[in-house]
Amino acid sequence: MQLGLVGLGKMGFNMRERLRRAGHEVVGYDRNPEVSDASSLEDLVAKLDGPRVVWIMVPAGAPTRQTVEELGGLLAEGDLVIEGGNSRFTDDQEHAKLLEAKGIGYVDCGVSGGVWGLENGYGLMVGGEKSFVDRAMPIFDALRPEGPREEGFAHAGGVGAGHFSKMVHNGIEYGLMQAYAEGFELLDASEVVTDVPSVIKAWQRGTVVRSWLLDLLVRALDSDPELDDLRGYVEDSGEGRWTIEEAINHAVPAPVISAALFARFASRQDDSPAMRAVAALRNQFGGHAVHKAGS
Amino acid sequence: MQLGLVGLGKMGFNMRERLRRAGHEVVGYDRNPEVSDASSLEDLVAKLDGPRVVWIMVPAGAPTRQTVEELGGLLAEGDLVIEGGNSRFTDDQEHAKLLEAKGIGYVDCGVSGGVWGLENGYGLMVGGEKSFVDRAMPIFDALRPEGPREEGFAHAGGVGAGHFSKMVHNGIEYGLMQAYAEGFELLDASEVVTDVPSVIKAWQRGTVVRSWLLDLLVRALDSDPELDDLRGYVEDSGEGRWTIEEAINHAVPAPVISAALFARFASRQDDSPAMRAVAALRNQFGGHAVHKAGS
Amino acid sequence: MQLGLVGLGKMGFNMRERLRRAGHEVVGYDRNPEVSDASSLEDLVAKLDGPRVVWIMVPAGAPTRQTVEELGGLLAEGDLVIEGGNSRFTDDQEHAKLLEAKGIGYVDCGVSGGVWGLENGYGLMVGGEKSFVDRAMPIFDALRPEGPREEGFAHAGGVGAGHFSKMVHNGIEYGLMQAYAEGFELLDASEVVTDVPSVIKAWQRGTVVRSWLLDLLVRALDSDPELDDLRGYVEDSGEGRWTIEEAINHAVPAPVISAALFARFASRQDDSPAMRAVAALRNQFGGHAVHKAGS
Amino acid sequence: MQLGLVGLGKMGFNMRERLRRAGHEVVGYDRNPEVSDASSLEDLVAKLDGPRVVWIMVPAGAPTRQTVEELGGLLAEGDLVIEGGNSRFTDDQEHAKLLEAKGIGYVDCGVSGGVWGLENGYGLMVGGEKSFVDRAMPIFDALRPEGPREEGFAHAGGVGAGHFSKMVHNGIEYGLMQAYAEGFELLDASEVVTDVPSVIKAWQRGTVVRSWLLDLLVRALDSDPELDDLRGYVEDSGEGRWTIEEAINHAVPAPVISAALFARFASRQDDSPAMRAVAALRNQFGGHAVHKAGS
Repeated sequence: MQLGLVGLGKMGFNMRERLRRAGHEVVGYDRNPEVSDASSLEDLVAKLDGPRVVWIMVPAGAPTRQTVEELGGLLAEGDLVIEGGNSRFTDDQEHAKLLEAKGIGYVDCGVSGGVWGLENGYGLMVGGEKSFVDRAMPIFDALRPEGPREEGFAHAGGVGAGHFSKMVHNGIEYGLMQAYAEGFELLDASEVVTDVPSVIKAWQRGTVVRSWLLDLLVRALDSDPELDDLRGYVEDSGEGRWTIEEAINHAVPAPVISAALFARFASRQDDSPAMRAVAALRNQFGGHAVHKAGS
Repeated sequence: MQLGLVGLGKMGFNMRERLRRAGHEVVGYDRNPEVSDASSLEDLVAKLDGPRVVWIMVPAGAPTRQTVEELGGLLAEGDLVIEGGNSRFTDDQEHAKLLEAKGIGYVDCGVSGGVWGLENGYGLMVGGEKSFVDRAMPIFDALRPEGPREEGFAHAGGVGAGHFSKMVHNGIEYGLMQAYAEGFELLDASEVVTDVPSVIKAWQRGTVVRSWLLDLLVRALDSDPELDDLRGYVEDSGEGRWTIEEAINHAVPAPVISAALFARFASRQDDSPAMRAVAALRNQFGGHAVHKAGS
Repeated sequence: MQLGLVGLGKMGFNMRERLRRAGHEVVGYDRNPEVSDASSLEDLVAKLDGPRVVWIMVPAGAPTRQTVEELGGLLAEGDLVIEGGNSRFTDDQEHAKLLEAKGIGYVDCGVSGGVWGLENGYGLMVGGEKSFVDRAMPIFDALRPEGPREEGFAHAGGVGAGHFSKMVHNGIEYGLMQAYAEGFELLDASEVVTDVPSVIKAWQRGTVVRSWLLDLLVRALDSDPELDDLRGYVEDSGEGRWTIEEAINHAVPAPVISAALFARFASRQDDSPAMRAVAALRNQFGGHAVHKAGS
Repeated sequence: MQLGLVGLGKMGFNMRERLRRAGHEVVGYDRNPEVSDASSLEDLVAKLDGPRVVWIMVPAGAPTRQTVEELGGLLAEGDLVIEGGNSRFTDDQEHAKLLEAKGIGYVDCGVSGGVWGLENGYGLMVGGEKSFVDRAMPIFDALRPEGPREEGFAHAGGVGAGHFSKMVHNGIEYGLMQAYAEGFELLDASEVVTDVPSVIKAWQRGTVVRSWLLDLLVRALDSDPELDDLRGYVEDSGEGRWTIEEAINHAVPAPVISAALFARFASRQDDSPAMRAVAALRNQFGGHAVHKAGS
């Protein structure tokens, strides 16, 4: 089928390619003319036959909001917008309302798989009305991995359910990575285990901890066995924060996911104000030595 | 090759079967005569040709220690003992010393895979001298999963390195399970996601969080979609505790693995003394209502 | 000086009393006519001489918002509103804007001290313009504890700074209580320490952990040495949640305060969905026994 | 009464002074001849009248063990040893057994108060037989703070109970300090609160979080309002580690105290191996940028 695709970055570019390989007609638009099939959003819409389906794949927040608004002005009643970026699920409800007023449908879709999606397919979680989801099913089927549909695609609920699911997925991802990371550090610190990369490699088959993330850790260790080309500096991109905020909203204890998030925050600090306070307190009550700034 | 196998419980029984399917000759001994091939440890040793290889697969702690001591009295110089249970790595050093005094070799082996190992093979992490490890390699090759040896087997280091690796493996396992569990609870608490089992099922392909544990969670949800046949009561069997103790010994921060361990402790409490103290304090300073015991 | 006081609950009632003991003229209004000095908000405002100062001490959220709006319609240019409840600091900015449009000043004030404030005084943290803060200083001086002003009162910054400071104060309070609570539980669990209440009582003088909260814990143990009249069920009232949300907004690691918050969430669960998931997983991979629901 | 005191460091030196001010006769021994009253342990023992009481105040571990052993050879039946250092409570049981074989009594005493103890007195928690504790009561009464005995002294139980109580005290102390520290960092990060030191100073009276540690934080901020003369580098000296190990032994959840301990570990790392692993994983699956080592 025919699809308009807004945003041809690291994710969108590969998705266009995967969809084309599956025989779909994709008209892509990106601000970068070198990769774009259309000269503007207006041009993109003009190039599509009605009723149109347009997939948004731009950064979450203001860029997505603005694209939804612009499309609201360009599309027609009966068209359908799929928001496939990393929007917060609360934004979806606003997007849907804005478009619904013009008779335009809205589906939110959480997309997992990163740079591997082109070859492996993308795990998809969608939210919205069944009729809209059904209309876009050929696209979802092309994007998702081979195998049974239900193992790589879920219709999670109404508007927002796709991004809520993706948010939780990413929160879990934080916890999984931190668990492997703590294990790696402990193996590394031990004088007993003398071949850490081999141990982690050997976890790939048969063990309880085998996973795709573990395979990727093995891949990273293959090229850098001590991971000492890197600094332990880790960004976060929103979903982990939102997961904790939703956990708080629902009074759900989330000690592991929050610990993983806080470890990232700490990884980006040159020095910790909190630990300066603890050092100051120990010095005050016990006369314990402190390290002076700059030392 | 020929192997003596002490302990034919949930793990040992299946391992004997897997080894036999691979063409090895296994003489098993268990206190339960219905599954045992020998009437006693002495009988087991008598049934093996020297130099013998005997694999111990009994509960960690006193039972393993006692078995090592008894074998020390029965085996001869040049024989080899493989300790495949869940011993603490510090026990291995004592076992090895005890046997070395009699010229008997010792290898410790962490075995992962649970009840699935019979069909899937077992992930193996071993510690000890290379010559001993090499001698038992046909056994390791039969037990480990199909595929490249290094993806299901590692020679991690000297005596104790196998169990140290297994301990860390299990610590990671605690963290992974807790990460999925927190995500499950948050999805479950949300009013937005209306089909939680489908979302988790859809994570099996293409997503970043796909793993064997996730497959098992899907399997559990298939038969009990809300998991409400179960109580949230979780035992722990030592490795998680040891992982934190070793993290402390090496000054390695382990917030995720410790949070997972403490969640298990809390899951087993009918009522929390700590939270009684917090409730009492809130009542003291703010006159906040408390729940009376038994209410 | 003269003060209007809206809200005569657990806090407001005692504050009126403390202010009157200090010689101030307080006209209180509460929906409960038995404690109220005025028949309505309108009546309260009519009973005050301009320029008026009105202190709001009603529950945070909608009740406070509504009171601010009503006062906005009743007060005159040059009057001053002090919001002393547990509002989120982001609400203050809206309150101030609403009143500023009518020429009414606004100060937010975090008040700590609970039911002990009548006798001990209240710790005060305020936000807003200096001229407004100065105008109300006689009130602040009467409410705060004896001793130097700066040890019980702070002008923390602009509008919202008072409630932000109070929010952080309460977040810290969560962490402090949980630290004592964990220590209490460990002493209680130990077979070595046979007189737990005496140990905690002995921490009141000379030790590093002495504090007012510790004194309250001793007080609670005096009447219930094992705290077994209580259930370990602990509510939370917002500030702890907001503290974590602000920590996340500012990328500040807050492992202790979040752990304290999550412990409260967990204390209120009859059964943990997360731990049901962990139990299910252990059963799946290792055949570990589970506890059936209702058992 | 007369007391022998072994170890005249930061703690022992001040304790001798406080005891002398109270009229006790103290013969101190230290390896440093400038502060020592005796030329050797043998000389110390010779200078005391039987039945002797000797207080040990040397570093925990080997130095304490060695001192106990030496005293065991020098003292006589009916003498009494008090171990006042920071020994692990499990060491006390060995010390007591060693001395008991020679008819020498043993009491363990946890001492809190740091460098302030000379003026304020020391919080004391003791373990051992009542008759031994009673014999040393004049010493305990001189060392503890003014006020009722039970507010600065506890007989916690049998041998080891004093140090167990002190261990838990210190574990709590870790949690308290970290709670204040997280709050300090959040205030510091906020743009709303413009006068952080004043806010913390104002918590000293009337608030729920007032404590001696808070007073010390105010003291530190008085001389360094941003604490930027210090690095956020914090040592730990054993008790926090032991607290977590005992929590694990007793299956007591200790999320706050462990988080405080791990924050100290992390504060001492120039770079985190765990976070290198997380950075590597994010790069692997999502192509996320990493920071190169040395950057």
